Amino acid sequence: MSLGEFQLIRKFTSGLKLPKNSVLLGPGDDCAAVRSGARTLLTTDLLIEGVHFRRDWMTPEQIGFKAMRVNLSDIAAMGGTPRFALVSLGLPKAFRGRASECLFAGLRRAAEEEGVAIVGGDTNASDHLIVNVAVIGEAGPKILTRAGAKRGDLLYVTGRLGDSALGLKALAKRRIRGFETFVRRHVEPPSRVRVGKALAKLSGVHALMDLSDGLAGDLPHLLKAGRVGADVRIDALPRSPGFETAARRAGADPLALMIGGGEDYELLFAASPRVRIPRKISGIPVATIGRITPMPGVLRWLRSDGSPLEGRGAGLPGFRHF
Amino acid sequence: MSLGEFQLIRKFTSGLKLPKNSVLLGPGDDCAAVRSGARTLLTTDLLIEGVHFRRDWMTPEQIGFKAMRVNLSDIAAMGGTPRFALVSLGLPKAFRGRASECLFAGLRRAAEEEGVAIVGGDTNASDHLIVNVAVIGEAGPKILTRAGAKRGDLLYVTGRLGDSALGLKALAKRRIRGFETFVRRHVEPPSRVRVGKALAKLSGVHALMDLSDGLAGDLPHLLKAGRVGADVRIDALPRSPGFETAARRAGADPLALMIGGGEDYELLFAASPRVRIPRKISGIPVATIGRITPMPGVLRWLRSDGSPLEGRGAGLPGFRHF
Repeated sequence: MSLGEFQLIRKFTSGLKLPKNSVLLGPGDDCAAVRSGARTLLTTDLLIEGVHFRRDWMTPEQIGFKAMRVNLSDIAAMGGTPRFALVSLGLPKAFRGRASECLFAGLRRAAEEEGVAIVGGDTNASDHLIVNVAVIGEAGPKILTRAGAKRGDLLYVTGRLGDSALGLKALAKRRIRGFETFVRRHVEPPSRVRVGKALAKLSGVHALMDLSDGLAGDLPHLLKAGRVGADVRIDALPRSPGFETAARRAGADPLALMIGGGEDYELLFAASPRVRIPRKISGIPVATIGRITPMPGVLRWLRSDGSPLEGRGAGLPGFRHF
Repeated sequence: MSLGEFQLIRKFTSGLKLPKNSVLLGPGDDCAAVRSGARTLLTTDLLIEGVHFRRDWMTPEQIGFKAMRVNLSDIAAMGGTPRFALVSLGLPKAFRGRASECLFAGLRRAAEEEGVAIVGGDTNASDHLIVNVAVIGEAGPKILTRAGAKRGDLLYVTGRLGDSALGLKALAKRRIRGFETFVRRHVEPPSRVRVGKALAKLSGVHALMDLSDGLAGDLPHLLKAGRVGADVRIDALPRSPGFETAARRAGADPLALMIGGGEDYELLFAASPRVRIPRKISGIPVATIGRITPMPGVLRWLRSDGSPLEGRGAGLPGFRHF
């Protein structure tokens, strides 16, 4: 890695506590060197100002925190343990002082919470703020992919859906008051690493992924990978107390936010109906939202009376309104 | 990893030949899963349009090729073997068709030449072209860091210095004719992976790094890490045939290009005078350019009569003219 003209990574990381048994060589050389397990998980996410975030909606610390959490979510979505991270930054002029320190503090807070060591990276000048994080993790006893859902499996999600999308809506309308918990959820996505690890230890969990593009955008990937379909019960979708009222107050369709809003960073999984899935895992509620069907690619959204929502659009990725 | 709105990574990587024994899970899921050795090398480099490259000076294929090579150079600089790569792309509108395919073809060409599997990544919309590569490698029998140079060690560099800087100069002056080999060197930096691996097997090699910021910018890092100094003989610096004439024709000081130009992506190393370093390693010439001295941080550039260049500037990073 090059440290770039500012050598900021070295400055930022000089205070890091790196676990000596696993980090053989930290930041400052051409590469980092680490001890890793035999089965390694790799993921990366690129966040670009104006595309993924706005600097006037989030503090630098929050941008850093979210950039790391989004990557940790990918490791959680395989049932693995995140271990090491590389951070590449493109920093605008206005960001090269205190703001960049706060950005790095946010990255570090999210990493250290999960025992992840930031072992290196690259810093450069840039017109727009760019944050790329790559995370190296260790696979659990099972690598839970998106594929593997079986006919008759039950579908589960962790936490609540739609909060982040509602928070984004409030930010866009500059109406934070009364929407604080939702805004916070958008700005600080949850960590589901412990839940993912617990799922990798349970037998009967067949497929796992995280929700970044909304249930309507993401579930089809799980169905495609498993060559199955699904029936999802709308009234079973977990929502925060007061969510529907708040959504309507923001002029939004609650259901559209819950299934099409995105950035939930909750886990979605399919498990055999014969296995007992706890109603809470590591303190996080787990809801049964539907069932896997044998019809490849057919995703039906069921009303409380069991009738499906009509229209070919329902269930397709990118579908938003109904 | 998220595939982003274009799902280009999936498209690009659908034709990749992934080694089944080491890649457990390729692109398309939340993470890639690979088998790795016990000691893993990690590096990342972020290239941003307008900062690291200009689209009118390089083809998309060349931008991709260089982005990968620059990362492979970091692995070479530790004596390791690159194994896997993650690629994050920010693509401007004009780049979303054929140009992005060429970009990816360049990344792939550089990766496959060294047996590196591109196992995942992220693609996004962006105003400027952004290419972040993270490479995961396997350490050799020794991890050759920048630290470890000892008093009396000889200093070596591979290949030739200054060609890339002269090529950049020619590009900036829009005078390609007569400078083709130098321009090519700027656009397609060399791979020194095999040389680095060979060095990690030799006993008596004490410190190793790659040259990305020019000898005058990089050597001080090696000296600082080893708490030593160095005398470098200017007439021993390896140069291409006709380099000096070409440099003057471009209006440049040949020595300034050789020690201050940057982007050579050659290897710099220190080895015991008792070990015989071959004059060629894997077909690449290796030149002795000087000697490690016991004076911490003191870097002297010696003329052919043995007298040092004067001026405090000589030998400091960023020093360019004399």
